[in-house]
Amino acid sequence: MSKRLTVEEHILSANEALAGQVRDRLDVLGVLALNLMASPGAGKTSLILRTIADLRDDLRIAAVDGDVAMVDVEKIAATGIPVTLINTGGSCHLDANMLLPALDELPLAETDLLLVENVGNLICPANFALGVHLNVVIASVAEGDDKPYKYPAMFRGADVLLLNKIDMLQYEEYDVDYFRRGVEALNPGLTFFPVSCKTGEGIEAWTAWLRARVQA
Amino acid sequence: MSKRLTVEEHILSANEALAGQVRDRLDVLGVLALNLMASPGAGKTSLILRTIADLRDDLRIAAVDGDVAMVDVEKIAATGIPVTLINTGGSCHLDANMLLPALDELPLAETDLLLVENVGNLICPANFALGVHLNVVIASVAEGDDKPYKYPAMFRGADVLLLNKIDMLQYEEYDVDYFRRGVEALNPGLTFFPVSCKTGEGIEAWTAWLRARVQA
Repeated sequence: MSKRLTVEEHILSANEALAGQVRDRLDVLGVLALNLMASPGAGKTSLILRTIADLRDDLRIAAVDGDVAMVDVEKIAATGIPVTLINTGGSCHLDANMLLPALDELPLAETDLLLVENVGNLICPANFALGVHLNVVIASVAEGDDKPYKYPAMFRGADVLLLNKIDMLQYEEYDVDYFRRGVEALNPGLTFFPVSCKTGEGIEAWTAWLRARVQA
Repeated sequence: MSKRLTVEEHILSANEALAGQVRDRLDVLGVLALNLMASPGAGKTSLILRTIADLRDDLRIAAVDGDVAMVDVEKIAATGIPVTLINTGGSCHLDANMLLPALDELPLAETDLLLVENVGNLICPANFALGVHLNVVIASVAEGDDKPYKYPAMFRGADVLLLNKIDMLQYEEYDVDYFRRGVEALNPGLTFFPVSCKTGEGIEAWTAWLRARVQA
């Protein structure tokens, strides 16, 4: 296995260099970029749609949609914002090598906020830096309250955490305190927003925070 | 990337050979083995606990629990069946190289049914054969009805499919027909069980089917 590790280390180091190129391009143009990561079905696309709806009057938004096969790009495109697609062809994560050419397809000079939707996977995307400014992890009440304990790397690397589907707290045995204790042990003081993309609850706190980050 | 692909192909081919060794050991001892795969929080452990409860009077059951960090092994061990743990240390899937030594820790000569819980991931485990007899995919109503369209490899490689959390159909906008059409396009005639590990609905149909497979 040592040979494989060497190759992996080489790939990760090459990815870091490309992530630096991504960051340079974003910073020159004044674009704040987010990497949205979550399990399949936790609500990445729904959160993107809610975020666009809340912020489109104040900010110029663009998006990148990463998926292994069929994609949510039509749902995002229907909002009218510029969006481009990365079909990973089966690969379990986005990396900077995929993101860099995708940036060419977006009007970044006229963009304030770039939303990058990663592949639905709570493990692999945590290993590949994209060069964006904020790693956003979306957990979901439907997944159960033990996720920080079971997938620590994802929660350790987060800059912001959203807990989606809080409308389901009335049906599910879900201990929010247990969830948050697990997060705090990995990532003390992590910014946290409980939301429901279905009902809209909590979305405004998230978008107000994000608006302030873009305008800072 | 061509060098990386070569290494990956080498790893997958070595894994196939080890999967053959796993299969030989299981078949010599007359053990039917299942590889349970699903997204985080879809209900792998819950299904294992329900399956043990239903079948333990008729069959001798053992389990392998694979996880990236904190594990569900205590919940399974609490049932009293033999269970062993594979902590992948961050790796996103089980492979035959991990499973082979784990078999040594179980009383396989006194086992009829072996339940292998894979890592919570709807992408990577589909690429690594374990040498077991049945690939079992567990989808969940909470994830949304588009999962076959978005994660085709997992559904294409399934031998049995369960849709868990059907008790949530009353709260969620979930089109079971759309879900099943997506599955049928990838894997026509796939054996399918809608279940709720929470209420027990549908579990008996699954365990009756599984009992018949073991006793065949």
